[in-house]
Amino acid sequence: MKNLIVAQSGGPTSAINATLAGVIVEAQKSKEIDKIYGACYGIQGVLEEKFIDLNRKADTQDKIEMLKRTPAAALGSCRFKLEDPEKDDTQFRQIVDIFHKYNIGYFIYIGGNDSMDTVYKLSVYCEKNGIDDIKVIGGPKTIDNDLCGIDHCPGFGSAAKYIATVFAELEQEINVYETKSVIIVEMMGRNAGWLTAAAALAEKKNGKTPYLIYLEERTFSMEKFISDVKEELDAHDTVLVAVSEGVHDEEGRYICDTLPGESDTDVFGHSMLSGTGRVLEEEVKNKIGCKVRSIELNLLQRCASHIMSETDINESFNLGQNAVRIAVSGESGKMSSLKRIPSDKYEVEYCAVDIANVANLEKKVPVSWINETGNGVTEEMIDYLLPLIQGELSCFYDNGVPDYIVLK
Amino acid sequence: MKNLIVAQSGGPTSAINATLAGVIVEAQKSKEIDKIYGACYGIQGVLEEKFIDLNRKADTQDKIEMLKRTPAAALGSCRFKLEDPEKDDTQFRQIVDIFHKYNIGYFIYIGGNDSMDTVYKLSVYCEKNGIDDIKVIGGPKTIDNDLCGIDHCPGFGSAAKYIATVFAELEQEINVYETKSVIIVEMMGRNAGWLTAAAALAEKKNGKTPYLIYLEERTFSMEKFISDVKEELDAHDTVLVAVSEGVHDEEGRYICDTLPGESDTDVFGHSMLSGTGRVLEEEVKNKIGCKVRSIELNLLQRCASHIMSETDINESFNLGQNAVRIAVSGESGKMSSLKRIPSDKYEVEYCAVDIANVANLEKKVPVSWINETGNGVTEEMIDYLLPLIQGELSCFYDNGVPDYIVLK
Repeated sequence: MKNLIVAQSGGPTSAINATLAGVIVEAQKSKEIDKIYGACYGIQGVLEEKFIDLNRKADTQDKIEMLKRTPAAALGSCRFKLEDPEKDDTQFRQIVDIFHKYNIGYFIYIGGNDSMDTVYKLSVYCEKNGIDDIKVIGGPKTIDNDLCGIDHCPGFGSAAKYIATVFAELEQEINVYETKSVIIVEMMGRNAGWLTAAAALAEKKNGKTPYLIYLEERTFSMEKFISDVKEELDAHDTVLVAVSEGVHDEEGRYICDTLPGESDTDVFGHSMLSGTGRVLEEEVKNKIGCKVRSIELNLLQRCASHIMSETDINESFNLGQNAVRIAVSGESGKMSSLKRIPSDKYEVEYCAVDIANVANLEKKVPVSWINETGNGVTEEMIDYLLPLIQGELSCFYDNGVPDYIVLK
Repeated sequence: MKNLIVAQSGGPTSAINATLAGVIVEAQKSKEIDKIYGACYGIQGVLEEKFIDLNRKADTQDKIEMLKRTPAAALGSCRFKLEDPEKDDTQFRQIVDIFHKYNIGYFIYIGGNDSMDTVYKLSVYCEKNGIDDIKVIGGPKTIDNDLCGIDHCPGFGSAAKYIATVFAELEQEINVYETKSVIIVEMMGRNAGWLTAAAALAEKKNGKTPYLIYLEERTFSMEKFISDVKEELDAHDTVLVAVSEGVHDEEGRYICDTLPGESDTDVFGHSMLSGTGRVLEEEVKNKIGCKVRSIELNLLQRCASHIMSETDINESFNLGQNAVRIAVSGESGKMSSLKRIPSDKYEVEYCAVDIANVANLEKKVPVSWINETGNGVTEEMIDYLLPLIQGELSCFYDNGVPDYIVLK
């Protein structure tokens, strides 16, 4: 019997703890697995041996259920880039030594693109060095929905549901006054517009307000934007605008970079964008002069565990279970994944995909799912998104306030 | 038998439609009332005779329940300032003529401070001119909780619950990384810090992160703020800051006015504030240099009907019923109100208060409910707030998306 270790990485989501819960439940059931360790703060916590005993911390059905409904990342996360093992394999040797020291045979790493890169590098390192007693498996997670090798990403459905809900509410809000009025909402999603597309789910549901939706997969033109808004305002008085933080002009310049202040980058070298909504707000104010307000959903969209997609939480849990099954079956260098089964009814099946087909790749919105004028999405997009937000699940409340499990 | 007319005014809330639902249900029950009109877009809609038949639009228990859970203001709202009748009573004569034309004996106006001013002026005008067949009653509403003559305002409890929920989530979010980190959240509330105080409801519930809470009732010092943040960061690594949009320095200058761009005012001459969080974010970045992010809750905090306080929605409904009862009893120039009954258990009783004691007044947070150092609230504040956020109520969902009633 071997021990299992699980860690979380990358940006928080509402669903990453559901995947952790799935890992714990499946590992508890497995006859191949003895101890279940949680490494705090991702791969960095592995290197620092910051381990907790998850069998003890999540030993009841109630605690598991609470973990499924706790947002962010209960084990903590990191944005830690491992060295390239071709240049310096010190960290990889350290990780393997630590795993051997703790008799760890299974490592499940739950995260997004960058975390899958860690899974890839570590599994390749093990393979190249003949280390076959450590199985390294990725558990997908990202609200951005930009992982390859999977139909859609755990965490995305809940964020999409939150966004659709916010748009439904803002549509009621904007129609309260008899005034020409524009609300611009900026969504996260570094290089993919999936989250922004989710706004479309609320359109025409509770009124006739037009939505203008701009994804970063299409070049953004400020002139076109202003003319779109003018046109809709003429016909409808109110307009809701959904815009990806990463929209850019034809020369690739981010729209938000026209704001004063330096643009930051994270340790992976990705731009940290925000302010696109404010730039558009100023432009509407100056060029149209109507009432306009911009809202940045900011961190709220990725940890809103008070309104989650039940479908997303269940699938996230199942993907955690599936990850353990893959590891125990003896595979390594795989990501736990799901496929949509072609059928009239929405159904998925769980599978394993090669991590090499996931790491460092990004799944963008197909351009054919964006309308011709570049300010909305097609029916294919709605058909893809709608099943992912079905069912409502909330965190638990105690005395009126959210009640979570605290692991670390 | 007379007809009743009801209208909504001021900023949207999650609960104003629950009060409207209460008005409709009570008016339907009353033997004194025949038709139930809704005026679209507040007092402006009255002047323009934009009336709808609410008996027809809300004729089933299901529709009433849906109305209770629809955010914003289903009849529409306005920010329309009536002329001073002492100078020009044209509008008042028009309103009375229209009411007589439609055989309206009861007018319920649901709104905040400015709307209560309309109720006051209209009832005084009627009294002075011997018009005793029109009873004018105010229905309270404001997320700001700044109305006098009532223990707490309908709509506030739901906004407070939303804010406490967001803080609970952000506390999970901020503790995900092992990094010194600050999140600053800016709340609405023009001249009263009630909403900001609600952040305290989540403190110490799911962790040990300190909350620094700055209400506009205390002078804001940037030096003190930076020293507070430094002190907490030294001890705890992470800090959550809750700040009122209207915090100002000792000379009365709004902190947000240090941002470039003109400060706007609405038709009532109130400053439209925002940007305080961004100013504090810049200051933390420059003076401390740690990771910092500011979030403006913006419109999201006043129309989040996907997470409402059940207590708030029930009380809002009851206040609507109570308003009709007051009107039918023959009183005018009153606001439907509630008192907290001193007891171990939270209980309220419904009553009527003179509108003169409400209009144009503001209820601020008692300074004794702010801690000595001015960066938190006392137990009295928690005891006051906690009963108001009890119970969770959500909008209805259809096919994964919020489903509202559309009246106008």
